[in-house]
Amino acid sequence: MQYEELADLAQQLRADAVRAADAAGSGHPTSSLSAADLAAVLLAHHLRYDFDHPDHPGNDRFVLSKGHATPLLYALYRAAGAIDDEELLRYRTLDSRLEGHPTPRLPWVDVATGSLGQGLPVAVGMALAGQCLDRVPYRVYVLSGDSEMAEGSVWEAVEHASYNHLDNLTLVVDVNRLGQRGPTRHGHDLDAYARRLYAFDWHVVEVDGHDVQAVDSAFAEARSTIRRPTAILARTYKGRGVEAVEDREGKHGKPVPDAEAALAELGGVRNRRVTVQPPPEGKVLLAVEDTEPELPRYDTGDTVATRTAYGQALEALGSARGRVVALDAEVGDSTRAEYFAKAHPDRYFECYIAEQQLVAAAVGLQARGYVPFASSFAAFLTRAHDFVRMAAVGRAGINLVGSHAGVSIGQDGPSQMGLEDLAMFRAVHGSTVLYPCDANQTARLVAAMADLDGVRYLRTTRGDTPVIYGPDEEFPVGGSRVLRHGHHDKATVVAAGITVHEALKAADLLAEYGIPVRVIDLYSVKPVDAETLNDAAGQTGCLLTVEDHHPEGGLGDAVAEVFADGRPAPRTARLAVRNMPASATPEEQLHAAGIDADAIAAAVRLLVERVVAH
Amino acid sequence: MQYEELADLAQQLRADAVRAADAAGSGHPTSSLSAADLAAVLLAHHLRYDFDHPDHPGNDRFVLSKGHATPLLYALYRAAGAIDDEELLRYRTLDSRLEGHPTPRLPWVDVATGSLGQGLPVAVGMALAGQCLDRVPYRVYVLSGDSEMAEGSVWEAVEHASYNHLDNLTLVVDVNRLGQRGPTRHGHDLDAYARRLYAFDWHVVEVDGHDVQAVDSAFAEARSTIRRPTAILARTYKGRGVEAVEDREGKHGKPVPDAEAALAELGGVRNRRVTVQPPPEGKVLLAVEDTEPELPRYDTGDTVATRTAYGQALEALGSARGRVVALDAEVGDSTRAEYFAKAHPDRYFECYIAEQQLVAAAVGLQARGYVPFASSFAAFLTRAHDFVRMAAVGRAGINLVGSHAGVSIGQDGPSQMGLEDLAMFRAVHGSTVLYPCDANQTARLVAAMADLDGVRYLRTTRGDTPVIYGPDEEFPVGGSRVLRHGHHDKATVVAAGITVHEALKAADLLAEYGIPVRVIDLYSVKPVDAETLNDAAGQTGCLLTVEDHHPEGGLGDAVAEVFADGRPAPRTARLAVRNMPASATPEEQLHAAGIDADAIAAAVRLLVERVVAH
Repeated sequence: MQYEELADLAQQLRADAVRAADAAGSGHPTSSLSAADLAAVLLAHHLRYDFDHPDHPGNDRFVLSKGHATPLLYALYRAAGAIDDEELLRYRTLDSRLEGHPTPRLPWVDVATGSLGQGLPVAVGMALAGQCLDRVPYRVYVLSGDSEMAEGSVWEAVEHASYNHLDNLTLVVDVNRLGQRGPTRHGHDLDAYARRLYAFDWHVVEVDGHDVQAVDSAFAEARSTIRRPTAILARTYKGRGVEAVEDREGKHGKPVPDAEAALAELGGVRNRRVTVQPPPEGKVLLAVEDTEPELPRYDTGDTVATRTAYGQALEALGSARGRVVALDAEVGDSTRAEYFAKAHPDRYFECYIAEQQLVAAAVGLQARGYVPFASSFAAFLTRAHDFVRMAAVGRAGINLVGSHAGVSIGQDGPSQMGLEDLAMFRAVHGSTVLYPCDANQTARLVAAMADLDGVRYLRTTRGDTPVIYGPDEEFPVGGSRVLRHGHHDKATVVAAGITVHEALKAADLLAEYGIPVRVIDLYSVKPVDAETLNDAAGQTGCLLTVEDHHPEGGLGDAVAEVFADGRPAPRTARLAVRNMPASATPEEQLHAAGIDADAIAAAVRLLVERVVAH
Repeated sequence: MQYEELADLAQQLRADAVRAADAAGSGHPTSSLSAADLAAVLLAHHLRYDFDHPDHPGNDRFVLSKGHATPLLYALYRAAGAIDDEELLRYRTLDSRLEGHPTPRLPWVDVATGSLGQGLPVAVGMALAGQCLDRVPYRVYVLSGDSEMAEGSVWEAVEHASYNHLDNLTLVVDVNRLGQRGPTRHGHDLDAYARRLYAFDWHVVEVDGHDVQAVDSAFAEARSTIRRPTAILARTYKGRGVEAVEDREGKHGKPVPDAEAALAELGGVRNRRVTVQPPPEGKVLLAVEDTEPELPRYDTGDTVATRTAYGQALEALGSARGRVVALDAEVGDSTRAEYFAKAHPDRYFECYIAEQQLVAAAVGLQARGYVPFASSFAAFLTRAHDFVRMAAVGRAGINLVGSHAGVSIGQDGPSQMGLEDLAMFRAVHGSTVLYPCDANQTARLVAAMADLDGVRYLRTTRGDTPVIYGPDEEFPVGGSRVLRHGHHDKATVVAAGITVHEALKAADLLAEYGIPVRVIDLYSVKPVDAETLNDAAGQTGCLLTVEDHHPEGGLGDAVAEVFADGRPAPRTARLAVRNMPASATPEEQLHAAGIDADAIAAAVRLLVERVVAH
């Protein structure tokens, strides 16, 4: 395209953005207007993309980090012929796939955005896939706002990208100087951003973001830059092209006041159709033959930490399946992801202590068809909560593994104890939450989770625990195991992970008092085995849950949910970590928290006596 | 002290660190040995601190961001005469206040650390207090590891500190080149850190961290630098002084192999006592006279968004109480914190889009005696989950307010909807979770939460809702309101926030069917009003919870917990957001999620029929 045509295309995008938001009665046209020239040049001159085949392995990727600028994104889709005008004008309405912020409900959207500061971190995962795994020279483009440069996650990604020489990655920052509630920290001081990015070893281009020729050159410069990612810092004006809103405060996130006048100002509706360059022919991903993993096998009676079984199972899974990858946040020796690292260094991504980047890279990798396992301490995965939430919005399939869960870690104290991870992961839409108690069970669950949809979370334990299951036993997701069972059970103890072993000891203690109890290993916390719990409730009359977690949101709540179906509910009670722990041995911790065998036995006795008394 | 004495003091700290970890059988001596010279010089020559009066307003603050280096911290305390040798050697044992990572159980620790990358962000809050509020020239020192420089939260803080010209802040980075599992990203490349920090407008000093004279000069340089914070980048060796571990991999987080040999190498145990410089005399905080806030008053029958009531109540609270401060993450126009900003600009802190820094600054400000209110979209507070978790570990008293909760925000779609915030905040140890449904209730709860302990969370709604309570009504934390009530109630609907209004409409619908129902406004989600719920269960037989939140961890679980006390439980059912929402109007969203009046009425009828059928 000639530059005049590019400029005209940009005006078309502006007009469409104004129309879409006006039709919807909401949305962010002003944030779209600033970036229209950038988007027009990218679409018409640089992006290589087959809109009919969004899964083409050679396609470039485009991530709209400033996810609120969907009027622009959908205008681009119309210009590319991917959607028609009628669909554009159903923006933000019930049942429209053109949501307020983009999600992969649209075939051309790889990841959901809309929580700022996430586009670049996720794009780093895609660029890593392109460079290290796919070995296909697609490029990854990110369009970011200037406000979101304040997010720390952006700087985790900036550091990761240059350290890994991701020259297939281009960040375009739409520096329109205005955030939601007023000027950004650095306003139009492009140098402020340039200095920072340059110090982080990026190639940086500063450009007038409304000069299509200059923007075109900047993209060309990015494509020809090797060994470094490139940031294009574009000086723009929010609301560009519509005088009533251009460069004015208080115009964020609302339609322009007079759409008709704005359209006249922009030169009216156009129907320019862009022929987007196709991806290069002949680039295909290597077919990877999956085999059945040879999972590690542990002997019953031995003691093995479930975190160790995780690492060894992951190594085996990696040997059987070439698309399984692992990510670490500088604790691979603790989570035991290092087993995978040693066996498959080419598929292991060290993210250093940057848990947001850890999860974001996993999201980016799964968007390229990989099966990522990302692990850290359970406690530190809270750092990535917003990325996990957005992964669910984006229908991403990722495996997250949190080690060092609960007070049973011992002396290190509460800052290192994951005591809210079950609550966090249960509340994620469509998630799976698994909490194995022994090594063989862990290995099986690691293999099973790889094939599920959505966010999958596995919780592991620091200390060695007895191997109580044989290596050939199966543990379906959504199931449970009844470990003690008799016709005269007077109560049921529901445990998972470390507390399973305490529950078994408690059952022995209670047997001495003549109180037979059922013990359920609820290794699948979500989905939960309602049938077995219902049977236990019906047959034993009361349930006691025991968890190495705060009382809210974990095992107790998972069991309670089963009985919130309008039917008569059993008596229940719950043991959980109710006080703030300090330093002590693992045994002392379990005792102090009131979740060890003695506490369980005492609670069951109380519960049984109450049942009798009523 | 002479430099030889300083070096000898450093050796004492090393010997004590080795002894403490050896006695405990765990801990991080090697991470302590690298920083011993830095700590010795700071304590003996630069820190101004009265260990007998840790609350002295003129005291400098010291934050150990590398919180695992407690052997060094406690060795410092012994050198300062604050603890004795006997206590030092009970490190990490049951009932000892010398925990694995520091907490404010110790009077000289202001904030808990141990999740890396949090020390600097929290210190920024303290430094802001010193510069903008206390107007006392204390300095804030942070000792950080090099690995944690990978955390994005550090760069949020770096940006915030220089933008606010916090020259009272000094960051010391102990660049010992080794992380937990191996070399850090930048190893001993001090220039890599220096370039980045310099680009963010910091003053930077590079120094040999084992040369006490050079370190002394660096601290002096930091103290004389104006208008900029200073980073002292210290090149050190992990395990310094103990040959068996010095600069070796695989030595993180464990006692040295032969403590006796190490002590001999270090010159044995010393008992050097440091006379720490006292803070300057005559510096006192201004006494602030609190008055009763004149809360905003809303007329019943009007419609007002609870977020607006939050902003207006906060403004009123700020007028009555001089130590109330507010923090924003660039959404003050949406959260309505802008009311406070306009009335009290000197106590309003704009953190831009950096939610970790938002919460961290609140933690730092409360450590200096302020009452911070930090607000953002409920969805984006998940970004700060780890900071909230650590605030609880540190017994910090902070107020967090999340707006735009739930599907009722409408068109913006799921990325902007807080649907897991109740789960997140309920699972925080010692937290309070409030969710008002009208403007007067909001105002009262905003005033009430300011005086509570721990992490307090208030959830607000985007849209206007009817004012149903008078301005003089009271809403004690831990209470609830019974809005509909009769002798023949056949079921109870438990709602909060937006769903209260749907529940009231449903009660009207059900009355037409001849089904009287009780309606409870459960505005205090944690602590929860067990008595009222128990009464309702006993009198109506069944409870239906309705929440604009995912089914896990929110209102339904809060109610379930009440009945997990071993007694017979009522029939319960729950309505919550079970599908992934898209864009639609608020009314369409509530309907699609199955939490509107129609859905409530239908569910109650099912529940009542079931009760009758049984």
